[in-house]
Amino acid sequence: MKFSIDRTKFINQTNNVQRAISSKTTIPILTGMKLDLAENGLTITGSNSDISITSFISKEDADNDLTIESLGSIVLPAKFFNEIIKKLPGDNFNLEVLDNNQTLITSGVSEFTINGLDANNYPHLPEVATENQLIFPTDLFKEVVNQTVIAVSNQESRPVLTGVNFIINADGLTSVATDSHRLAQRKIDITSDEEYNLIIPGKSLTELVRTISDSVKEISMSISENQVLFNFDNVMFYSRLLDGRYPETDRLIPDDSSTTLTFDSSNLLSSVERASLLSHESRNNVIKLVIKAADNKATLFGNSPEVGTVEEALDFKTLEGEDLDISFNPDYLKDALRSFGGNTEVEISFTSALHPFTIRPMENKDTFVQLITPVRTF
Amino acid sequence: MKFSIDRTKFINQTNNVQRAISSKTTIPILTGMKLDLAENGLTITGSNSDISITSFISKEDADNDLTIESLGSIVLPAKFFNEIIKKLPGDNFNLEVLDNNQTLITSGVSEFTINGLDANNYPHLPEVATENQLIFPTDLFKEVVNQTVIAVSNQESRPVLTGVNFIINADGLTSVATDSHRLAQRKIDITSDEEYNLIIPGKSLTELVRTISDSVKEISMSISENQVLFNFDNVMFYSRLLDGRYPETDRLIPDDSSTTLTFDSSNLLSSVERASLLSHESRNNVIKLVIKAADNKATLFGNSPEVGTVEEALDFKTLEGEDLDISFNPDYLKDALRSFGGNTEVEISFTSALHPFTIRPMENKDTFVQLITPVRTF
Repeated sequence: MKFSIDRTKFINQTNNVQRAISSKTTIPILTGMKLDLAENGLTITGSNSDISITSFISKEDADNDLTIESLGSIVLPAKFFNEIIKKLPGDNFNLEVLDNNQTLITSGVSEFTINGLDANNYPHLPEVATENQLIFPTDLFKEVVNQTVIAVSNQESRPVLTGVNFIINADGLTSVATDSHRLAQRKIDITSDEEYNLIIPGKSLTELVRTISDSVKEISMSISENQVLFNFDNVMFYSRLLDGRYPETDRLIPDDSSTTLTFDSSNLLSSVERASLLSHESRNNVIKLVIKAADNKATLFGNSPEVGTVEEALDFKTLEGEDLDISFNPDYLKDALRSFGGNTEVEISFTSALHPFTIRPMENKDTFVQLITPVRTF
Repeated sequence: MKFSIDRTKFINQTNNVQRAISSKTTIPILTGMKLDLAENGLTITGSNSDISITSFISKEDADNDLTIESLGSIVLPAKFFNEIIKKLPGDNFNLEVLDNNQTLITSGVSEFTINGLDANNYPHLPEVATENQLIFPTDLFKEVVNQTVIAVSNQESRPVLTGVNFIINADGLTSVATDSHRLAQRKIDITSDEEYNLIIPGKSLTELVRTISDSVKEISMSISENQVLFNFDNVMFYSRLLDGRYPETDRLIPDDSSTTLTFDSSNLLSSVERASLLSHESRNNVIKLVIKAADNKATLFGNSPEVGTVEEALDFKTLEGEDLDISFNPDYLKDALRSFGGNTEVEISFTSALHPFTIRPMENKDTFVQLITPVRTF
């Protein structure tokens, strides 16, 4: 295996693949990055037990300046290999595999000889058939993920709750996540010949949206029994799926309400951020919302026995319904409000002090809902 | 105590004072920030066992929008107080001390009540006479500190070596620091009526140069028996001095040399950074420089048994003298080269493989020197 390549183009692709590589893995070869050089170009692969990413650098594209002298494969220690390539002096670099997987990297005045590993020992990638691809506009896909992944559980006691449930049928795609204290659900229109119900690990989705650069317009998704494959540009992103049955969540979302307020989301977010400064110092991290309908007043209260108290007169747009005292974790409300992005008008609906309340964007009440369970404080 | 003030101007000053406040202090009141309101303005104070910083906000300056209703003092929990002020909604805020040191802070829709502490229990600031002030241009002072503080020891076994030695006499100011493996010495012209020999803790100097904003043109320095006071703009920065006798360092710097090279500092820095990528993985973190005068070649070698080897053909400007094999810690050379800033031409002089070598800027060979002790590898 021997080639030379444009250093910057190479770094752009290793940055994608690097996301799948963990130095903490128990399988030593997975701390490495695999390079496979074929007639048509170079494929770079990184993998851990959850996700695998490949990125392809085409010989056809003259910008890549890929000159091939001989084909082959090698696995190189990812951390050092990346640091070395980033610090090399030249615009290009040469890479040649010598005897015993020793790999010579040269660029300008620098010459590195790195101990590689036999690529035959690297695990095979999952096989995912790509006949029934679903196509998403990138912006919409990122929105769906970012709006729901905030509600996944980070506790392994119920593994399915660490994932986001994608339900694809004649109604489109419903994406839902819950950690049993809060829930996020977003629906979008999408056409699919097949019906699917899958649970994708939240961490995989978080890495996926970080990997997709802003220049990518479309992303395609292919599903097998225990793997999902996302494809965009020259990148293939594989994630395992979570086994098990996701809970029915539709019945958790209340239909009616006794008190409803509308807010500018960023205004309300600022007030909750201030109130949470003190609640973070108290043992139970709870703030209280007191609504006095007759006075047309809504006030947030936070306190920490050590530091002091805070009172925020909320700047709502409308208030309708009954009086209410309700307590909740301010961090859930902050996450929910941030998921609407910018200055969105939102509606918050309560049924009682002990029932979950919902936050919805005024413009898309039917397709997007954040739900938060209150905390009983008496 | 009751006043209102411009929030942004207030935050600018608390950001300075905050540098002196540690949440790890064993004296609880020092986790607080002291506010003293007098007729002419507000003084904010923060302190730890090493440094104290005060910042003054004048009533005279209309930009501060300081309206005083009643005078007084209070100590508030620094971390929360700062977070609260930063997140308040209004351009201004009001602060009023109520009974039992309870402090009411209001701004727009927000109302915080914070538990304060009695300002009478706050330690007194050191007393430093300011008759014999030394005046430095800020840029030059920062240069002197940044070029020498890199060589202070971070081990408490010899406390004086954790400081920078300032020697002020008829020759000007000599600033020197050494951790016994390397040494940095910078001399500048300065006029002083008195002679001084003091040791300022390296950490104090690092915080000091961070506190001095780019808009400050001059800084004055006043010295007492065990304290030094730096004054700039409306800020007073006190540091304790280190007790003890600083070692004589002049005799450590060699006068002659057997091999001399000149480099562009940033070129050499890049080569050393690459060579250190692998040495960092080996047990002793050493790289080897091999000079072959007859071949007009100088080569850096680094290696890690696990990862591999690196060879850098150095791109020097001139090479004179005898052949040499010398090994050293690359991190010391990186720190030294960075202290010259940008693309400076530097001269490196060696006497033997076991004696310290020096790095000096070509344009100021007599006033600035970095010295590094090699490592014996055989």
